[in-house]
Amino acid sequence: MAIVLSGMRPTGKLHLGNLYGALQNWINLQDKYKCHYFVADWHALTTGFSESKEIYNNTLEMIIDWLAFGLDPKKSTLFVQSLVKEHAELFLLLSMITPVGKLERVPSYKDQIAQLGESRTANYGFLGYPVLMSADIIIYKANYVPVGIDQIAHLEFTREIVRSFNNIVQKEVFIEPEPLLSEFPKILGTDGRKMSKSYGNAIYLADSEDETAQKIKTMFTDPRRLRRTDPGVAKECGVFMLHNIFTDKQTCNEIEYSCANASIGCTDCKKILIKNLNEKLRPIREKRKQLQENKKNEIIENIRESSKTASQAAKETLNIAKEAIFNNYL
Amino acid sequence: MAIVLSGMRPTGKLHLGNLYGALQNWINLQDKYKCHYFVADWHALTTGFSESKEIYNNTLEMIIDWLAFGLDPKKSTLFVQSLVKEHAELFLLLSMITPVGKLERVPSYKDQIAQLGESRTANYGFLGYPVLMSADIIIYKANYVPVGIDQIAHLEFTREIVRSFNNIVQKEVFIEPEPLLSEFPKILGTDGRKMSKSYGNAIYLADSEDETAQKIKTMFTDPRRLRRTDPGVAKECGVFMLHNIFTDKQTCNEIEYSCANASIGCTDCKKILIKNLNEKLRPIREKRKQLQENKKNEIIENIRESSKTASQAAKETLNIAKEAIFNNYL
Repeated sequence: MAIVLSGMRPTGKLHLGNLYGALQNWINLQDKYKCHYFVADWHALTTGFSESKEIYNNTLEMIIDWLAFGLDPKKSTLFVQSLVKEHAELFLLLSMITPVGKLERVPSYKDQIAQLGESRTANYGFLGYPVLMSADIIIYKANYVPVGIDQIAHLEFTREIVRSFNNIVQKEVFIEPEPLLSEFPKILGTDGRKMSKSYGNAIYLADSEDETAQKIKTMFTDPRRLRRTDPGVAKECGVFMLHNIFTDKQTCNEIEYSCANASIGCTDCKKILIKNLNEKLRPIREKRKQLQENKKNEIIENIRESSKTASQAAKETLNIAKEAIFNNYL
Repeated sequence: MAIVLSGMRPTGKLHLGNLYGALQNWINLQDKYKCHYFVADWHALTTGFSESKEIYNNTLEMIIDWLAFGLDPKKSTLFVQSLVKEHAELFLLLSMITPVGKLERVPSYKDQIAQLGESRTANYGFLGYPVLMSADIIIYKANYVPVGIDQIAHLEFTREIVRSFNNIVQKEVFIEPEPLLSEFPKILGTDGRKMSKSYGNAIYLADSEDETAQKIKTMFTDPRRLRRTDPGVAKECGVFMLHNIFTDKQTCNEIEYSCANASIGCTDCKKILIKNLNEKLRPIREKRKQLQENKKNEIIENIRESSKTASQAAKETLNIAKEAIFNNYL
């Protein structure tokens, strides 16, 4: 069975964008591949220690969401990056063959500096983030990494490091991971921008039904519908994008039609969404609450155990790499 | 008791320059401090994997020299860097707060690029070498690092990282190491340049007495003495520098005087050195041979064990650092 690897930074409670973007995809892959999914807590430090004190709680909240939403620890290996020290050792070893210039030319490097500012991105760890990412992937001999179409280039860096390493040691130690092209539905936040924790426009699994209703009521709709009688284009409305996930196909078609001829108003349209969304999330939220209230220690124990399993797999690859580098080692 | 830390790259068998430079100093410090001495095998990779296959043997040969020459594993903790994974983890954590620009401005960085060439130094690990060195030192809360007067600046980098880390986490986690200024006798090789493995001009502890005699016989002396009757300046002669180590003070004075008035020839002067040097090294070489022939497995076992001891100490500091960064961690 081919191996899939993917990670999420510990951003804390997951919102609909995370859930129906990345996580739903992870769940879909569970039966077809041997999946390794991890909390990328070391990556969360690449932009400095500024939010480091929230990482522990964010990790737990995120894992609770993973489990509540349907990630199955019996099918996939769930682990925390910092519990698998082999990632740090391979990061160090790979750093010795990674040209600095190559890192400086990674497109997202300059983008992120522009976006986050020099003060958070001028550090050595941030520059080396693609090296750590490569270590994460290749230490499990992952065949596939799920990516969106705009992220295919990211993986090229890792593939080049693999070729370079294998060429230097003259042995096929690591596997070049391939992108597993995944479609992520577009999910907008309440303000019409991409749903994101940092924009404060997100709806969370951990939100109550009332909070959810409140957020949807204030949500931006198609800006063409300034008045109730203006016709709208559902496909460009954030509310309709959620309907596509939570409402049956036939109702969606009806809404699209009624929106286009202004026979339904945004308020009524939202009411349907609130009902459907809360209904669909109800059992998941119920499960989340139970895990949160009664299973926290068990979850911590389990994630430690499965991180050991990951560590074992990582150690095997690392030893092969060390054998290739050193011939013999202590 | 204050803690001292120092490391040596695994260059293999040690020559007189290593022995009476760094190693003699390590031995002198053993009774006064709690010393941690390590084989810096990861550092040996910072200029690429080109000689990586020799690291294992070089490590063993070097440790055998350490022990034969008088380093006492009962007094000091001897370990191998790559056996203490905590160094890699702290390297990763420190990398998140180390500005790239600061690394680019380290004086030895540009020097080494000029000396070794871009092809060996253009990698990310080489750029980060001061971060790894800092991790090596501060993970043991070392108070002192023995350095020559020209290396004091190297330590300043580590001291700044410590201040910066402690300031970010608002806690005195790490200690600023201080330089322990040490005098290293000047030791020249057979060609009159600094004794160095890479120059092929070195006399090794592992050399036989005959090999030693042969090397000393061909050794450059004071270039003023082109003819037997030319007077020389002993203080500038590589042979006399060795006399200072291996020959008693009174004889040294006599040689210096006889050289200055050309009443002794270089051949005779060398004969005295050959005799004294081989005599003084005889018991050490004997011990080296025994260790080499009968104790290799025991040495490997011991270094693994004492690396575990080092690992334990390192883990304690690392946990305090993680507590300070994360508040709570898995």
